[in-house]
Amino acid sequence: MTQLLLTTIINERFLNLDVSQYTSSVSAIHHRLEQSENEPTGWLNGPIAMDSQNLYPILTMADEIKKNAEVLIVIGVGGSYLGAKAVQEALTPYFQKNEDGIEVIYVGYNLSGSYMKQIIDSLQGKEFYVNVISKSGSTMESSLAFRVLRKYTVERYGEEGKERIIVTTDPEKGLLKEIADTRGYRRLEIPSNIGGRYSILTAVGLLPIAVVGVNIVELMEGAKKAALDLKEESLEKNEAYRYAMIRHALYTQGFRIELLASFEPALSYIHEWWKQLFGESEGKSRKGLFPAAVSYSADLHSLGQFVQEGSPILFETFLHFKEVSKDYSIPYTIANDDGLNYLSNRTFNEINSISKQGTVLAHAEGGVPIIQIEVEKLDAFHVGYLIYFFMKACAMSAYLLEVYPFDQPGVEAYKKKITELLIEESVAH
Amino acid sequence: MTQLLLTTIINERFLNLDVSQYTSSVSAIHHRLEQSENEPTGWLNGPIAMDSQNLYPILTMADEIKKNAEVLIVIGVGGSYLGAKAVQEALTPYFQKNEDGIEVIYVGYNLSGSYMKQIIDSLQGKEFYVNVISKSGSTMESSLAFRVLRKYTVERYGEEGKERIIVTTDPEKGLLKEIADTRGYRRLEIPSNIGGRYSILTAVGLLPIAVVGVNIVELMEGAKKAALDLKEESLEKNEAYRYAMIRHALYTQGFRIELLASFEPALSYIHEWWKQLFGESEGKSRKGLFPAAVSYSADLHSLGQFVQEGSPILFETFLHFKEVSKDYSIPYTIANDDGLNYLSNRTFNEINSISKQGTVLAHAEGGVPIIQIEVEKLDAFHVGYLIYFFMKACAMSAYLLEVYPFDQPGVEAYKKKITELLIEESVAH
Repeated sequence: MTQLLLTTIINERFLNLDVSQYTSSVSAIHHRLEQSENEPTGWLNGPIAMDSQNLYPILTMADEIKKNAEVLIVIGVGGSYLGAKAVQEALTPYFQKNEDGIEVIYVGYNLSGSYMKQIIDSLQGKEFYVNVISKSGSTMESSLAFRVLRKYTVERYGEEGKERIIVTTDPEKGLLKEIADTRGYRRLEIPSNIGGRYSILTAVGLLPIAVVGVNIVELMEGAKKAALDLKEESLEKNEAYRYAMIRHALYTQGFRIELLASFEPALSYIHEWWKQLFGESEGKSRKGLFPAAVSYSADLHSLGQFVQEGSPILFETFLHFKEVSKDYSIPYTIANDDGLNYLSNRTFNEINSISKQGTVLAHAEGGVPIIQIEVEKLDAFHVGYLIYFFMKACAMSAYLLEVYPFDQPGVEAYKKKITELLIEESVAH
Repeated sequence: MTQLLLTTIINERFLNLDVSQYTSSVSAIHHRLEQSENEPTGWLNGPIAMDSQNLYPILTMADEIKKNAEVLIVIGVGGSYLGAKAVQEALTPYFQKNEDGIEVIYVGYNLSGSYMKQIIDSLQGKEFYVNVISKSGSTMESSLAFRVLRKYTVERYGEEGKERIIVTTDPEKGLLKEIADTRGYRRLEIPSNIGGRYSILTAVGLLPIAVVGVNIVELMEGAKKAALDLKEESLEKNEAYRYAMIRHALYTQGFRIELLASFEPALSYIHEWWKQLFGESEGKSRKGLFPAAVSYSADLHSLGQFVQEGSPILFETFLHFKEVSKDYSIPYTIANDDGLNYLSNRTFNEINSISKQGTVLAHAEGGVPIIQIEVEKLDAFHVGYLIYFFMKACAMSAYLLEVYPFDQPGVEAYKKKITELLIEESVAH
């Protein structure tokens, strides 16, 4: 049995889904994925091969960082930070750091001078480590941030500072690898056959995730379970493939936005990670579902109106964790002047679940096709499972759409423009 | 001269815009807005009427809160918190509280038990005030949170606790007004003729904004300047109307997503506020542009691929502040092992601006229609100006689309479902 339940409420007028139409294409893609040794699909079997022995170097380094620092600065952009940030937000407390972890601050994902100035100011008097993450080592945002942080590390710690810089990069090539080897920074590896947005379950995500105090052994066990469960070829048994099929069918029916909806504010960076995964994998050749996300019930009082009655271009995917560890009871009051005593035998999480059910019903009645992904529990194991589920579903989805899931040619366009402008300007300057 | 510059880059094949087509409808809507005494358009002239004398009660209360508390808990959902949160994020530091302000925490915008539990735990030993904001007083999310916080306030402060509860609600009717009057909580008013998502420049937004240390006198001066500038009837002189016209023209050309893009992470809640404003005002009668947002350059490494090469259903609105108060210089290094010394005479904000230019060029070449909104400076005055600009543009946009900008009938659908389910369940329980 899988750890995740996929259900749908789709009005027949939108989708007359004949699963048998998909059987042969899904099967062909399944085999293509299984036999893709020369493709960047190292993430497919990565979690199966990985055990606690493989995780040992990462765990040891995380312990060293937690012992010697109050803050870990993670430098990275796109796939080099979204995964770690997503798991951190999902599994650590809202208003304080985790008991078993230290603070992690993300830099180099923007070019704001104001942000950089404040980062450096906030580091005064704090012990820190730096983890720079980039496959090529030539992404401008993270390279500039690393330049600043290297200088600051030397100012603060002198020659010894090099022990506080960890470089996560390609094991064989690239500018960052060269810099690390020349300067004597320690390195962690991004396997050559895993691209940025599929790298969360490698050292890229795992070191920061361990440093904030999330159990990465359990996270990887969940991912491993998913990797095994989702090896099934059949659409009936493989929920990742079914999710891919349904969203593809909705796309062919004319829907152009997939709205990921959840009811726990902690999931907001899972949304962001998911948006990158699907948007960058599928948004090619003038195709693809635009990935958007809402955090309910907040956004029921915002985009909810549009979902219920606006342009009929979207379907909704509800992501729901059945069990969340902390909860709070609605108190009883004698006065009952707000009229809510009828809820005083309930907890917030119970009402939140009912609120999810009510929203699903209301939106379905409004004509919005609904996919529901239900996960047992919001913990490291199940988050690991979910991450793998989405990655595998994404690869299948992109191939169904007849686009290649593992490149991002459109990102180069703006990089080229910026570099041209910068060189022009620096000559003129 | 206005404080804001609106420019566009729109490929002719998308938009053969004949401004004269819009002149008469814009003019008719303009007069409808000007003469709308019986409509919820109190926000239109509100900033013109308001001066520092009107702001005095809010400023005094903010001073009292800052003097007697370390935290202000704001309870509200949708328009009752997004505006304050947007201005707070835009104008206070990233990693610490503002010098002139105290911390503000938002509650009652979700139903997470985990979030509520952690809020209450984090208040232990801290002095606090509560500001509950709701026009009707019957929104479930905020009512439940208020129930919890009222009880906790009594536990912490006893009978005196009532002095620490400020109620912002309708001055004449509603459950929350009744509760406040019976219990002796002080009240601030939401004018009857201003709806939730247009209420940011009333006590709804202004009290929390003042408490975090943003200068609300300057904020309102900016809004007042905008209210005066944007009284122009002519499309040539009124940038709010021009923005409304262009987005409407793009909608009629088949575009279905407006993507608000900015390059300063501090603007992320301005995005959220804008999404509510436009999504809830326009998403009706199966019409409307789906409002989405990206925070660049982070999202260039995420949704950037989709924007450049994905489904051609979106246009992009760049929101750019020309001056941001803090900045950081790219250091020079002797080794130059990252090859970036050619930028070492520049600052991050300069490179960020160039990055914006490069992105605009790349996306325009990719066929994405571009609107650019340039604002002089990221400060209270200009943020006030921008807020008013968006509200006026939104009212014009909705009327051009032939939907009513000031209701949200679709939000009731889910409220009704949830209430039904809760009553059923509580009978069964």
